[in-house]
Amino acid sequence: MITANARAVFGPSDPFKAITIDRRDVGPRDVLIEIQYCGICHSDIHFARGEWGSVNYPIVPGHEITGIVADVGSEVTKFTVGDRVGVGCMVDSCRECVNCRKGEEQYCLNGHTLTYGAVDKYGQPTQGGYSTHIVVDEDFVLRIPEGIELDVAAPLLCAGITTYSPLRHWGAGPGKKVAIIGLGGLGHMAVKLARAMGAEVTVLSRSLKKKDDALRLGAHHYYATSDPETFEKLAGSFDLIINTVSAKIDVDAYLSLLALDGTLVNVGAPAEPLSLNVFSLLGQRRSYAGSLIGGIRETQEMLDFCAKHHIAPEIEVISADRIDEAYERVLASDVRYRFVIDISTMRTA
Amino acid sequence: MITANARAVFGPSDPFKAITIDRRDVGPRDVLIEIQYCGICHSDIHFARGEWGSVNYPIVPGHEITGIVADVGSEVTKFTVGDRVGVGCMVDSCRECVNCRKGEEQYCLNGHTLTYGAVDKYGQPTQGGYSTHIVVDEDFVLRIPEGIELDVAAPLLCAGITTYSPLRHWGAGPGKKVAIIGLGGLGHMAVKLARAMGAEVTVLSRSLKKKDDALRLGAHHYYATSDPETFEKLAGSFDLIINTVSAKIDVDAYLSLLALDGTLVNVGAPAEPLSLNVFSLLGQRRSYAGSLIGGIRETQEMLDFCAKHHIAPEIEVISADRIDEAYERVLASDVRYRFVIDISTMRTA
Repeated sequence: MITANARAVFGPSDPFKAITIDRRDVGPRDVLIEIQYCGICHSDIHFARGEWGSVNYPIVPGHEITGIVADVGSEVTKFTVGDRVGVGCMVDSCRECVNCRKGEEQYCLNGHTLTYGAVDKYGQPTQGGYSTHIVVDEDFVLRIPEGIELDVAAPLLCAGITTYSPLRHWGAGPGKKVAIIGLGGLGHMAVKLARAMGAEVTVLSRSLKKKDDALRLGAHHYYATSDPETFEKLAGSFDLIINTVSAKIDVDAYLSLLALDGTLVNVGAPAEPLSLNVFSLLGQRRSYAGSLIGGIRETQEMLDFCAKHHIAPEIEVISADRIDEAYERVLASDVRYRFVIDISTMRTA
Repeated sequence: MITANARAVFGPSDPFKAITIDRRDVGPRDVLIEIQYCGICHSDIHFARGEWGSVNYPIVPGHEITGIVADVGSEVTKFTVGDRVGVGCMVDSCRECVNCRKGEEQYCLNGHTLTYGAVDKYGQPTQGGYSTHIVVDEDFVLRIPEGIELDVAAPLLCAGITTYSPLRHWGAGPGKKVAIIGLGGLGHMAVKLARAMGAEVTVLSRSLKKKDDALRLGAHHYYATSDPETFEKLAGSFDLIINTVSAKIDVDAYLSLLALDGTLVNVGAPAEPLSLNVFSLLGQRRSYAGSLIGGIRETQEMLDFCAKHHIAPEIEVISADRIDEAYERVLASDVRYRFVIDISTMRTA
């Protein structure tokens, strides 16, 4: 066993505490990673607070992990000690189902293994990246390209791939009009990625507060959705809308903004069902779709794309003792645009 | 003016009465059609009874029209007297918007002109095919290929194209698993078309009552949706589901039957909004979409496809004085699978 320092919560309303956790010994196909940075994703908060179902506490969240390879198993071929690597939302999948064979492990029919809060094939609970070390099968380890620092690389492993994948899948590119709903951790990445893909990018955010930021990040246009004229003005405008807001939205209103064959894609979901008028779909052969992170191959493609196009999230690096404060600020939308924990502050804890 | 015999309703609960209506004189680009047959579509009933909003009575329904060209305008190039032709749900569109220029007149941004119940560019109310003659711009007239009789051709103009278009758009073909919800006028055409396209076809119908029929029509499989085991057994099975039922369905349950990247397409819509759990879309990158008839070019393609593959709807031909009775039987699902009015029975009325 390998002992790692970590930060965990012991109950839905508990603060983070320093603990040590066991990581499995490095198996033949495993990579031991000395974690350098871990991003804070909104879903960490949902999960840690038990808002997505019962949790086997204590739980160590974190699935935007970057670090340095510290050891490799005897059969590992892709990585060597010292490599700069990352781990995202998954650490395993069945590898045998039709979706895994397509490289879409995020849709594994037998259930992929989440980086934290799941049980791995050894029967052990998985624990995430708010920790100093992690042991992961090499097939679920990503290479961080030269030219992307490890701190800004961290949020790419969830916020980056979650927006990159639907943008690619639904063909964002030159001649396409893409709207991004919400300018948070995911939304700001979606703007940068869609712009780099060559699309015409519009941000739809509640107020005008983030307008300057959005334009600076690469958006061509910005509209406040609190202004009812926005929906009239933009009716039938977009080929693709990526909704990064998990809260309930007026789906019919957003569908009305799509042009012929346009698609509205949710990358998150409200806990409760929402109301949809089917006429909103019929009118212009519109689609309403969902998308979940991305496969391992596509995640590597996204990292390489970001390196090539000099795309990095905007982050605020914090020490490990400020996670609780960061959670409160995420909930208050008081972060531009992603907190990243400096894991070095955890090594001596 | 050209006087045509017709059958009209004068109010939402009135029976059909024989009347005469005026058709415009044949303009330079117009075709005068002596109507031979007109199918009865469920939407005729909704419309005639005022269930889709206020109606400018009297109304002559009918948008599954076939007949013989009786006269052509001086500039008509596509048709000559004696040609076997058809007219579907549209008789005009703006022809200038981006969708019309793509040949998707059904999604005309300035509003296409419906065959009945609309107002045409001359300011006249449009009246449909329950009548002996109609005058239509040649661009909205279809050619009925040799090898399809005019009576069975009629339902192709709405039921045929409404199912053909989404099957083609979403790639029904060899290696694809397609399910059809409902085995009525549209559903039975969807089965025949999907089978001819090479897909593996499953019918999902409430009870087992229509099983023998479905298999005879070309379905490979048939399941009763009243059996809860159906949804367990078929989970994640289909690439495409065409929902021909306009009544409210449990969308989440049907979405769960889709495989990765599968699409559920409604070709009709319930009047009231329905409930959708976004997690149903996220899981396998599923889409929920709508589709509306088809463009003129695609309608001709569908007619030619049907001729080539010897596909024809199953019909029951009735005389004009049995329309009221036919409506009741459509509402009771007591038709296999489309009523077609023999318009010759209207000529002496």
